[in-house]
Amino acid sequence: MDKLHTLYTLIDLGGTFAFAVSGAAAAKQKGLDVLGILVVAFTVACGGGIIRDLCIGDIPPAGLSDWRYLVVSMTAALITIGITPLNRLLAGPVLLFDALGLSLFAVSGAEKALGFRHNYEVAILIGMVTAVGGGVIRDIFLNRIPAIFEKEIYASAALLGAIVVVAGNYLELPDAWVFPIGFLVCFLLRILALKYHWKLPSFSDKKN
Amino acid sequence: MDKLHTLYTLIDLGGTFAFAVSGAAAAKQKGLDVLGILVVAFTVACGGGIIRDLCIGDIPPAGLSDWRYLVVSMTAALITIGITPLNRLLAGPVLLFDALGLSLFAVSGAEKALGFRHNYEVAILIGMVTAVGGGVIRDIFLNRIPAIFEKEIYASAALLGAIVVVAGNYLELPDAWVFPIGFLVCFLLRILALKYHWKLPSFSDKKN
Amino acid sequence: MDKLHTLYTLIDLGGTFAFAVSGAAAAKQKGLDVLGILVVAFTVACGGGIIRDLCIGDIPPAGLSDWRYLVVSMTAALITIGITPLNRLLAGPVLLFDALGLSLFAVSGAEKALGFRHNYEVAILIGMVTAVGGGVIRDIFLNRIPAIFEKEIYASAALLGAIVVVAGNYLELPDAWVFPIGFLVCFLLRILALKYHWKLPSFSDKKN
Repeated sequence: MDKLHTLYTLIDLGGTFAFAVSGAAAAKQKGLDVLGILVVAFTVACGGGIIRDLCIGDIPPAGLSDWRYLVVSMTAALITIGITPLNRLLAGPVLLFDALGLSLFAVSGAEKALGFRHNYEVAILIGMVTAVGGGVIRDIFLNRIPAIFEKEIYASAALLGAIVVVAGNYLELPDAWVFPIGFLVCFLLRILALKYHWKLPSFSDKKN
Repeated sequence: MDKLHTLYTLIDLGGTFAFAVSGAAAAKQKGLDVLGILVVAFTVACGGGIIRDLCIGDIPPAGLSDWRYLVVSMTAALITIGITPLNRLLAGPVLLFDALGLSLFAVSGAEKALGFRHNYEVAILIGMVTAVGGGVIRDIFLNRIPAIFEKEIYASAALLGAIVVVAGNYLELPDAWVFPIGFLVCFLLRILALKYHWKLPSFSDKKN
Repeated sequence: MDKLHTLYTLIDLGGTFAFAVSGAAAAKQKGLDVLGILVVAFTVACGGGIIRDLCIGDIPPAGLSDWRYLVVSMTAALITIGITPLNRLLAGPVLLFDALGLSLFAVSGAEKALGFRHNYEVAILIGMVTAVGGGVIRDIFLNRIPAIFEKEIYASAALLGAIVVVAGNYLELPDAWVFPIGFLVCFLLRILALKYHWKLPSFSDKKN
């Protein structure tokens, strides 16, 4: 982890917090018990990162070996469970936290792959996988078609965020500029897509 | 594998047998064909261990490279398929075999992670993942919400079993004591939870 | 990759193309948007190979690091999306492409595992996993019981194809003979099973 600096860690833990909130809220809504909620929150928060670490060769995955990921995701889940009136306010914010996690992980995933000296294609694909992985696992657990395949612009936003990080690395721009720009590109695109229901085109021969 | 001793191997193969029975029984009940049953049995029996081995860096995973796992799980599946009247008696025992596999894998998963010199957090989390992984895969294959998220105390029992193993390692107690205690703590908690319908608290705002 | 020769690469890319077509067609039929279709196509085409590479220790997986897999699968998906009248003709060919991908990946998966000096059991199991992995992921994403567990002879054909490759390696036969035979055994078995509805036996106590 010392190949990567503090800003990276903050971004990765921020994404963990955001996705743990979204996972805990979804699991609570499904009526799971306390440990079920904690497990789903942890899996959503750390699942994308664990897939990332298996693919880039960081063994054991940071989500399992670094206590901060466990503490951050459990804290986020307990806050989400505990404060019921606050939870009622979270219907909108769940999508907000999801968008936050998406943008933070797109940046941190691409950056970590570059830090392990993999090529640009790996960095872009891993950035997207890290960002959308947790949400896909959440939807598979809750037995529905992963929302990323049907909803407003989602994976495309993560893809763009990861591309910004890789482009910044190629142009040797300082991370303190590149990371916020990558984050903002992904975050704003996702939020605007939610607000204005932007969708990519699909095809009319849908039968079922 | 020579870092780990015979007792470990027996426990791991015992868990493999138990989960293969539970996987084959569930697949047979769904009406899958012979190879479908064998594949589900093998995946349920070895899936948790393969995830464990990928995460701790034992490549290729023992479930794929050690013929004993294949032979034990195929034998268990064939027994489950073959003896129909015995299968009818298995409605209760499936849960029994599932609880056996859960407890054996919680112990062997935590022990193997320690044997690969990972830290205590990794050992506890990997113990739980090894124990519940097979069942989660089974339920995803059979297209339902993984039972661990809804049923009586399940993942918590595995968590406790793994914690016992890690605590025993920290206190430098002999494995011949620690393993049976870890197994019993998990197994008894699970069986009692089944018998008395112990559940962790969930929350009342369930809508769907 | 230089341990493996050109014929292997052609077979692996051929399987990638075939599965990308089958994934894109299924995703389009479900009404997913453009990026959803591309993501599903890529995941179906490269998912089995990525699981293979994680298990045999080829990090990062070729599907993520070798641009040819990305280009081949995106091309296949765009052809499938783009040419609507051609797509209408694909109802039969989807199964044909699926059978092609199955047979090509059974051969290339077993060969790659041998190339990484793993034992015969690993090679056979990895051949089967590579071949059926993409289809299982596709069906999990689309929220249905993986077809391999219910349909006509499928995983068994992949198993046989992988066994042929391993047997050829054991007998030190030239790859230029072994690969086509392994491919044909798997492909013909699958096609004949589709045509004549060959199924492995299942059991009559199906209740649900």
